[in-house]
Amino acid sequence: MRALILGNDGRLTLGHAPLPAWPGECLIRVTLAGICGTDLHMLEGYAEFTGVPGHEFVGVVEDAPAADAQWIGRRVVGEINVGCGTCERCGSGLKEHCAHRTVVGIRERAGTFAEFLSLPARNLHHVPDHVDDRAAVFAEPVAAACRIVEQVVVKADTRTVVIGDGRLGNLIAQVLATRTSDLVLIGRHEPKLSVARELGIDARTIDGAVPGDYDLVVDATGRPDGLERALELVRPRGTVVLKSTCHGATTMSLWPVPVHEIKIVGSRCGPFSMAVDYLADGAVKTAPLVAAIFPLESYQEAFATARHELKVLLQP
Amino acid sequence: MRALILGNDGRLTLGHAPLPAWPGECLIRVTLAGICGTDLHMLEGYAEFTGVPGHEFVGVVEDAPAADAQWIGRRVVGEINVGCGTCERCGSGLKEHCAHRTVVGIRERAGTFAEFLSLPARNLHHVPDHVDDRAAVFAEPVAAACRIVEQVVVKADTRTVVIGDGRLGNLIAQVLATRTSDLVLIGRHEPKLSVARELGIDARTIDGAVPGDYDLVVDATGRPDGLERALELVRPRGTVVLKSTCHGATTMSLWPVPVHEIKIVGSRCGPFSMAVDYLADGAVKTAPLVAAIFPLESYQEAFATARHELKVLLQP
Repeated sequence: MRALILGNDGRLTLGHAPLPAWPGECLIRVTLAGICGTDLHMLEGYAEFTGVPGHEFVGVVEDAPAADAQWIGRRVVGEINVGCGTCERCGSGLKEHCAHRTVVGIRERAGTFAEFLSLPARNLHHVPDHVDDRAAVFAEPVAAACRIVEQVVVKADTRTVVIGDGRLGNLIAQVLATRTSDLVLIGRHEPKLSVARELGIDARTIDGAVPGDYDLVVDATGRPDGLERALELVRPRGTVVLKSTCHGATTMSLWPVPVHEIKIVGSRCGPFSMAVDYLADGAVKTAPLVAAIFPLESYQEAFATARHELKVLLQP
Repeated sequence: MRALILGNDGRLTLGHAPLPAWPGECLIRVTLAGICGTDLHMLEGYAEFTGVPGHEFVGVVEDAPAADAQWIGRRVVGEINVGCGTCERCGSGLKEHCAHRTVVGIRERAGTFAEFLSLPARNLHHVPDHVDDRAAVFAEPVAAACRIVEQVVVKADTRTVVIGDGRLGNLIAQVLATRTSDLVLIGRHEPKLSVARELGIDARTIDGAVPGDYDLVVDATGRPDGLERALELVRPRGTVVLKSTCHGATTMSLWPVPVHEIKIVGSRCGPFSMAVDYLADGAVKTAPLVAAIFPLESYQEAFATARHELKVLLQP
């Protein structure tokens, strides 16, 4: 099958990869795949991954084991972590933290920038007919945004600021706006702030937030200095959710954490069922985020565009 | 009155300070004062404090406003944060986080390395007769240890490691041992580990803890690298309590926080009533921690000793 392949040398090329045929799993034809910040970081060597990258997708199940035959022909999105299924963490439902997990396009498992991918049926979620592919392809990052409301109590009057006007920051702001009416998104990019405003979000430049004033601050900058900025904005005994995954060392002041008794909550993958519901009922809108759709062979232009635009999609 | 005085030049001297006579407050004669890591840091310029340092004490109320006359003659310990009393945080019981607070021996308020100090009666706690001064003087750091069980649920089977065999680490281990039977203290100093073992704590050298294995990790190292070590030891979705207050910038890897969805809880001052109860019922034992008691005029030897021993006390 045709696929993008990340080599040992960190270079991405269009080539041919073997059809992913993992025993006991479903074969899914990828309809659309999304480029995410993690994919861009991976081109810089993070995760030491080689093979087919990409982890956001919507597709159609082409083949399945007999026991999962009911999935054949269904339009699906899929959870990207596949646990070993036998360890204590998998047993307690924590496949996202299985020490032996594979992760679609990130860790020992071929990804979504290809014609096909393989996933166990238990990772799949059916996409309702009225949710089009260009919305469904956002299921994975919307789930990551939904993870926050699983971890932190967000009430109608929770004073909230989301730092970062990129793909994930925008989706997080939309998800949190379903819980609180007191939300600000701050960022550095006027065009991205405009997209957020179109969606009804109070989006401001970075000097538009008041230091020490917020119950909840979400760092979705993807930058090493995001946490330090979050610690400035949160009130004493407030909560900072850390979404940015920055490899390498960060230099910052940690004293505000004990002195102001701040809680920092690391947050990664989230619930797909909630994400699909939000996409289906329109609570999260994605159309204004789609900057461009490229065929797989235009991957170089696609990745270049993804570095400065919101969501770029690939059509294998 | 005789007092230690920290000058603009960062030098500590024995001299004379005016009797602290804050309107509406109690005058307390200091019987014993404890030297803490914060005091040692302050000699290095942290907090930009000048005046009488020291914030751990036990004493006797010598004078009080008419409305608080019942306190005169009582043996007391005292909470060190004095809020403005009028702001929203003070109104909601958060005087520890009042933006205009003074703090005994740390922020705009004379401390305990002196013959007398001043505190409002609302900050005072009566010391039961059978708790001797050498135990009562530990009320402030024991309260700081107790703060953890206010912030984090610790159950009988919560796998816990405390990093740091110093004064605070030892007290934290003793407090947490009242909740969990699965606790390890790790440190670098064999004599301090021995003191912990005398108290029934499973105390080990730093290679005695298993990475990724603990539900709860408390960093009480007082060092900038303590948090990074804590992030190595905690299990996915576990909790790290950060007690170390390190001024200046720290360089560390933050990626484990989102990837393993770790929760970091900053922790500072705690409940004195719980601390006095633990000292009174013997759940927290302090006698083995007292390395030496010096008169105020031997302050140089006292501070030098406190740099490598557990608790050093001053007798004004």
